[in-house]
Amino acid sequence: MINTQDTMMTVVDPLPARLGQVEALLAGRVDANRSPLEAGLARLIAAGGKRLRPRLALLSGSLFGAEPGPLLYLAAAVEMLHTASLVHDDLVDGAGLRRGVETLNARWSAAASVLVGDFAFTQAAQLALATRCLPAIDLFTESMRRMVDGELTQLARPHGISSRAEYFDWIRAKTAALFELAVGAPALLAESGGEITAAARDFGAALGMAFQVMDDVLDFTGETSSLGKPAGQDLCQGVLTLPALIHFEAHPADSGLRALVEREPLPAAELERLVAAIRRGEAVAGAVEEARGFVSRGLEALSRLPEGPERLALAELAGSIIDRDN
Amino acid sequence: MINTQDTMMTVVDPLPARLGQVEALLAGRVDANRSPLEAGLARLIAAGGKRLRPRLALLSGSLFGAEPGPLLYLAAAVEMLHTASLVHDDLVDGAGLRRGVETLNARWSAAASVLVGDFAFTQAAQLALATRCLPAIDLFTESMRRMVDGELTQLARPHGISSRAEYFDWIRAKTAALFELAVGAPALLAESGGEITAAARDFGAALGMAFQVMDDVLDFTGETSSLGKPAGQDLCQGVLTLPALIHFEAHPADSGLRALVEREPLPAAELERLVAAIRRGEAVAGAVEEARGFVSRGLEALSRLPEGPERLALAELAGSIIDRDN
Repeated sequence: MINTQDTMMTVVDPLPARLGQVEALLAGRVDANRSPLEAGLARLIAAGGKRLRPRLALLSGSLFGAEPGPLLYLAAAVEMLHTASLVHDDLVDGAGLRRGVETLNARWSAAASVLVGDFAFTQAAQLALATRCLPAIDLFTESMRRMVDGELTQLARPHGISSRAEYFDWIRAKTAALFELAVGAPALLAESGGEITAAARDFGAALGMAFQVMDDVLDFTGETSSLGKPAGQDLCQGVLTLPALIHFEAHPADSGLRALVEREPLPAAELERLVAAIRRGEAVAGAVEEARGFVSRGLEALSRLPEGPERLALAELAGSIIDRDN
Repeated sequence: MINTQDTMMTVVDPLPARLGQVEALLAGRVDANRSPLEAGLARLIAAGGKRLRPRLALLSGSLFGAEPGPLLYLAAAVEMLHTASLVHDDLVDGAGLRRGVETLNARWSAAASVLVGDFAFTQAAQLALATRCLPAIDLFTESMRRMVDGELTQLARPHGISSRAEYFDWIRAKTAALFELAVGAPALLAESGGEITAAARDFGAALGMAFQVMDDVLDFTGETSSLGKPAGQDLCQGVLTLPALIHFEAHPADSGLRALVEREPLPAAELERLVAAIRRGEAVAGAVEEARGFVSRGLEALSRLPEGPERLALAELAGSIIDRDN
């Protein structure tokens, strides 16, 4: 006789329950009652976003058969590392809004943002250590190194980003490295072997590239209400992303974009003109095409992974990246 | 027949050669040719200071019989973690001189200091990981957590440091945690057992307390040429350290010190008066007495460790902390 209770249990999607456990691990690392600074970090973590990276880690770990305990720690470590990098990046960029709430450095001093970011990095490292899996901890630390390295390269370059190649190098470090970690480290937890781990990392990296390109597309096409930050913000801060670069390829004589590459300040009216021109031109479609290309490469890597419901869920998630509106 | 060549080898102090290998590991993590930012970090590492923390790690590891390879990585990790914390602390404190050279944030933006510090933290983590010893990596990460936590507590407190207890809590986190790591982690590398590891950590922590107290004494008594930074700097930045707190205990009605506790700005002439008063009063001797007490506690912990030439060297090093002039 079939035990219907058990059958029910296996049919129910375990992801929401596991994400809840990840949320609890994250919340448990930050004591909002201890100081206004930790309360600020707790708010940023609770504001949360889509939890895409822990979702990826949980699906990947489930696909490869990673042990649930270490997998939860890893998923939380990836999200905490992401949060830590947001805090320091907002300070580096001087951004004022994040996830619809004021950034820490808009409310507090640079000193507070530095320390709160360091605090979050340390919590992330302790969560990663809790997996007790040295290869996964290696990949965690390597991802952090690549993220920091990418920002340093960006800061040290004498001019702004001026080509697709520079842009792709940048987003590979700042975004794809973390997605690669989210999908690849669970394969290491499960001791999945070199080829499977490489395919998992490739899928994660491609997904990250597609995600960041779409993020930069939405920075031009989205509305403040759904983005949680003003539209055209990157360009207004002098950062050229893919839509702007494609527009620049089509209009190489545009003095405004040339000035931004040279890191010269532009008047607000000129910035508004550029944002409007990029919004209504062909550049947005060209950027979406690049994102589709990354999704295709990701799905190719995914096809090298074992079959299963989690693989289908990962494929669906990859497809949804193109259609997202925030 | 005794092989004199071999005898010579064992008599020669191996510490300088091993410190040279640590220097090489540190230098190998930073490529000064890659960007002005990395060049700045390379200069800070090369300026070096006394390399007290790696010395402690090497002596401790040699005493416990830790394997040379992991021990070198650990010693380098501790020094790199120290350097990383200097970069961020200088940003938090707004300090202009460090080791006699301009601090990174005096020359560059806050953004550069944040990222260079993150870069150094990441390099430190990778060096710690290279030991492949999870308990040592745990202690490394816990030390980092304590250091950041101490700075956060300091920043979040509504008033300045106003008592010996607050001061000791602060320096336990910002300095003693790293000394505890330097002496304690090598015991973990050598799997020395709980009691030995605890005694090693106690010795390191006590040494760190004594070192920081003497550092704060020298901030009042030293000259700019030997300190590498202006005398009385902490007080002028509104930070009360032990000599100032002891002076305050003796002069509770001093309106200047009261204002500093309340974090109110003071005119330069008033700060000069306070520095001069503390320099010529009894507070400096009282602070040195506290440092001696920590050295005594350290030597008591040291007596619980195995005998050997390294233990003698550690005892000598502990004694030298009181007599140092920079």
